Amino acid sequence: MSKRKAATALDDAWLAEADSVFSAGAPVAEGEAFFSMELGTHKVPMSLHAANRAKLVARMGAAGHGSGVVLLQGGKSSNKYCSDTETVFEQESYFNYLFGVAEPDWYAAIELPTGRTTLFMARLPAEYAVWMGRIVPPEEFARTYAPDGGVLYADELDGFLKEKLQQQGGGGGAAAAGGAEIDPASLAPLYLLRGLNTDSGEYTATTADFEGLKWYAHVDVAALHPQLAECRVTKSAAELELMRYSSWLTSMAHVEVMKGIKAGMAEYELEAIFKHFIYRNGGARHEAYTCICACGPNSAVLHYGHAGAPNNRVLAEDDIALLDMGAEYHCYTSDITCSYPVRGTFDADQRAIYETVLEAQRQIMGAMKPGVSWPDLHRLMWRVTLTHLVALGVLTGDVDEMLEAEIGAVFIPCGMGHLIGCDIHDVGGYNPGQPLRIGEEGISKLRTARVLEEGMVLTVEPGLYFIDHTIDKALANERQAKFFNVERLAQLRRFGGVRLEDVVAVTATGIDNYTLTPRTTEEVESVMAGGAWPPAKDDAKWLQRRWLRPLADEE
Amino acid sequence: MSKRKAATALDDAWLAEADSVFSAGAPVAEGEAFFSMELGTHKVPMSLHAANRAKLVARMGAAGHGSGVVLLQGGKSSNKYCSDTETVFEQESYFNYLFGVAEPDWYAAIELPTGRTTLFMARLPAEYAVWMGRIVPPEEFARTYAPDGGVLYADELDGFLKEKLQQQGGGGGAAAAGGAEIDPASLAPLYLLRGLNTDSGEYTATTADFEGLKWYAHVDVAALHPQLAECRVTKSAAELELMRYSSWLTSMAHVEVMKGIKAGMAEYELEAIFKHFIYRNGGARHEAYTCICACGPNSAVLHYGHAGAPNNRVLAEDDIALLDMGAEYHCYTSDITCSYPVRGTFDADQRAIYETVLEAQRQIMGAMKPGVSWPDLHRLMWRVTLTHLVALGVLTGDVDEMLEAEIGAVFIPCGMGHLIGCDIHDVGGYNPGQPLRIGEEGISKLRTARVLEEGMVLTVEPGLYFIDHTIDKALANERQAKFFNVERLAQLRRFGGVRLEDVVAVTATGIDNYTLTPRTTEEVESVMAGGAWPPAKDDAKWLQRRWLRPLADEE
Repeated sequence: MSKRKAATALDDAWLAEADSVFSAGAPVAEGEAFFSMELGTHKVPMSLHAANRAKLVARMGAAGHGSGVVLLQGGKSSNKYCSDTETVFEQESYFNYLFGVAEPDWYAAIELPTGRTTLFMARLPAEYAVWMGRIVPPEEFARTYAPDGGVLYADELDGFLKEKLQQQGGGGGAAAAGGAEIDPASLAPLYLLRGLNTDSGEYTATTADFEGLKWYAHVDVAALHPQLAECRVTKSAAELELMRYSSWLTSMAHVEVMKGIKAGMAEYELEAIFKHFIYRNGGARHEAYTCICACGPNSAVLHYGHAGAPNNRVLAEDDIALLDMGAEYHCYTSDITCSYPVRGTFDADQRAIYETVLEAQRQIMGAMKPGVSWPDLHRLMWRVTLTHLVALGVLTGDVDEMLEAEIGAVFIPCGMGHLIGCDIHDVGGYNPGQPLRIGEEGISKLRTARVLEEGMVLTVEPGLYFIDHTIDKALANERQAKFFNVERLAQLRRFGGVRLEDVVAVTATGIDNYTLTPRTTEEVESVMAGGAWPPAKDDAKWLQRRWLRPLADEE
Repeated sequence: MSKRKAATALDDAWLAEADSVFSAGAPVAEGEAFFSMELGTHKVPMSLHAANRAKLVARMGAAGHGSGVVLLQGGKSSNKYCSDTETVFEQESYFNYLFGVAEPDWYAAIELPTGRTTLFMARLPAEYAVWMGRIVPPEEFARTYAPDGGVLYADELDGFLKEKLQQQGGGGGAAAAGGAEIDPASLAPLYLLRGLNTDSGEYTATTADFEGLKWYAHVDVAALHPQLAECRVTKSAAELELMRYSSWLTSMAHVEVMKGIKAGMAEYELEAIFKHFIYRNGGARHEAYTCICACGPNSAVLHYGHAGAPNNRVLAEDDIALLDMGAEYHCYTSDITCSYPVRGTFDADQRAIYETVLEAQRQIMGAMKPGVSWPDLHRLMWRVTLTHLVALGVLTGDVDEMLEAEIGAVFIPCGMGHLIGCDIHDVGGYNPGQPLRIGEEGISKLRTARVLEEGMVLTVEPGLYFIDHTIDKALANERQAKFFNVERLAQLRRFGGVRLEDVVAVTATGIDNYTLTPRTTEEVESVMAGGAWPPAKDDAKWLQRRWLRPLADEE
């Protein structure tokens, strides 16, 4: 960061320090292969992926799958529709998790139980050098990605599998090598990745190319997915450091936007500033998801910013801005939301609603530690929120009765947070053996009902939204309508919403908050008025923010 | 542009003027529907698409397809792999060309011969309002996109077609409406879009959903594609204005990068600056293709910047920078390349090679007008280049003999330019009835062998590249090796390459150049030293640049 001089509204000295924390200080051993985007961006050691593979091998063994070969297919290159315009390739998350390969059209095999890993790269025609650059040979890629079994070409995969599965199955590799017939019964199992993503309802899509491998009698498409998804639920030390980098970069970009926002700008200018910052200063070419730059009434639209609503409102002086944006680095994501008044100072309603959400965050973060149930924290958020809405005059009556009547989901129809990692909504939320989805309005939207464990990384994202669709439905519902003060509600109908979203890691005793944005109203107003960031001292210790260096009052 | 105050190194007054040229001055009639990204960005009148449809209807009629219904499917929404992370939707080019619809999952029908157009939108569940915002009803979309037949839901498409095809076929719509059996022989033809993209070798992919429509006896998948592709080859006045905007915005972003570049930066910082500029100042959310920020030896890699070579070199003082980047606005693209020394001043080799490419551009542009053959211009580029390479001492011998020996393709193995429009490599290059692809080394890479026509927009992109792969092949080829001065060539092996790429429109008598970047070495060195842009006067009138206002010497 210190080596580039991109204009930024942030404290230069502090930014420079990130170099030492995230690159020099990263856990990359002398001579070890690593990924980085140069110039002080985070160094990701390839041992991170080796450790992920070892974790998988251990889990497979414990689940009774101690022999055979695990075979994965990486993402494939693609064009825009029928044109020859290539889209910028982004690796599939499971493949990145295990191997860290940036190129499209690869495969990988992990032998059980040794964990010996062989990568299979696309064999490109020599002429591709003209368009794609020097064609990197397998032995050079073997140094880049450091798989202990080396790198072969994809067209060598079939022969490799025949030999390995025969050897492991007791048949020896000789027959395959000699071209003789293979007896399927003599083969060890081949594990392919197929399973349900419980957030999208889609199945893993990257086994299609293996349909040609029909000669394998022992193809197992059930055992791998739950084990691999479970591996991703808790993060290693190296993964945590990478997640911390993504969120640090995301936080700084949010501060840059916060310092640049003003009425008269278009929402997409905020998106442009954010993306420029994370790429130029942090090497993050991709945002983790479509930037949600929702201002004024748009802030009540949870996934605003899509092609049909492309962040194109011009900001008004009295708008609230809800900005939900995250960077992705080496396929590890961040997901942070800041909400604040465009004017730079909170009016009474903005302050009251903001403080409600902040109080929910305070209580949730205070309660988070291993053993705590995620749905319980969601219910805690609802309780805090409804209590505040009574004080605000929007609701009348008993909060327990409101909770019973599912009023919480009227104002917060989405989950209070989610696992995060290689996917923003990370896998494993409803893995086999874990608590099932709860069929209760609002709670059913939670992406996991699990109990917290050390090493999980999650977002904590309470919110409070005035959404016509849910409010109108509630007002038409006898069981719910009676709690509403319709006049006060009408005043807030066009307010929009507030969301505060932090990325936090669960530790042995509580949490470690990777989100370093202004959060209290004092911090927000100070930064928007040109004040320094980071602050001289931490006035919100309950946020458990992991500063890069101790602040003044902690030194 | 004047309303936002994004920091830029450009002349503020000049940028402000773009407002009046591109928005106030755009051909949008009072009360007419238009697309824009607000704040002085270009207003695209929906009549542009109506005119495109009228052009298609006229062509279909002239080709003997005067009745029936043309049915198109728009692009579909998609997620990253199996996750629930939605990719930002970009409309399919044919669908955008005819209808200008930004949303995914639509269909459209054009009745022949009236041209009456009906759009079919996705019917979203009411709950989507929570995530996507207020669900816009058909009558509101009808005002946005102004189809004369209005907007219906996609689930109404089947009934619509049954009725229309029966009516047109002479069977009347009553039977369909009444639910009676349909006699397929009584139906008018239904035209679907299926045809080869001659750049990618892929077929149009957006007819898959129509497989359920098997009851149509008269499905024609052959007639539509050549007519529609041919429509796109020449642009209307409104399309030209939109293309001019994309290229104006792209030009300004290139100048911003040129003013910011310095040794020690990473290539991807240039990409970040470019994308920030086009989005923030011009509302262009998408670049037209992956940014090629190729510096030093990378500049000889024609499609550098892909995921395996992600613009991650740190710039050296004596690097040449080859930056090939283009904006896309309302799905209309630009594609401009600037090449210049990172240091800001040309050394002897850089100057000699740059001047070679510039001279090729000068001669090509001087020759361009209706009636001229594109392959002839490509051969002209080779002749200019080889003549200069003789003068430079790289080649020895007779230039005609070199051309005969295909030496041109050693240094320029790609086409000298291409049609551009809704796709960067726009369709229609080898439409039926047009000159066939020429089977000659290098010439075969041309994306069209057509004769120029008024209204075509093309890139003019001569280059000169020192590519190990093609040079090594030539040195190993007796017929070619004899022309090379190996010692002089060795000195330039690590040079990389230079490409100068302009977007120009063919007029009745010549060209109109939409590219407004510094081009002469004097202009480049002046701007890189902090000089003003645009220049006070135009020292390279042969570039036929279309300035926003007359420069001083023309006033």
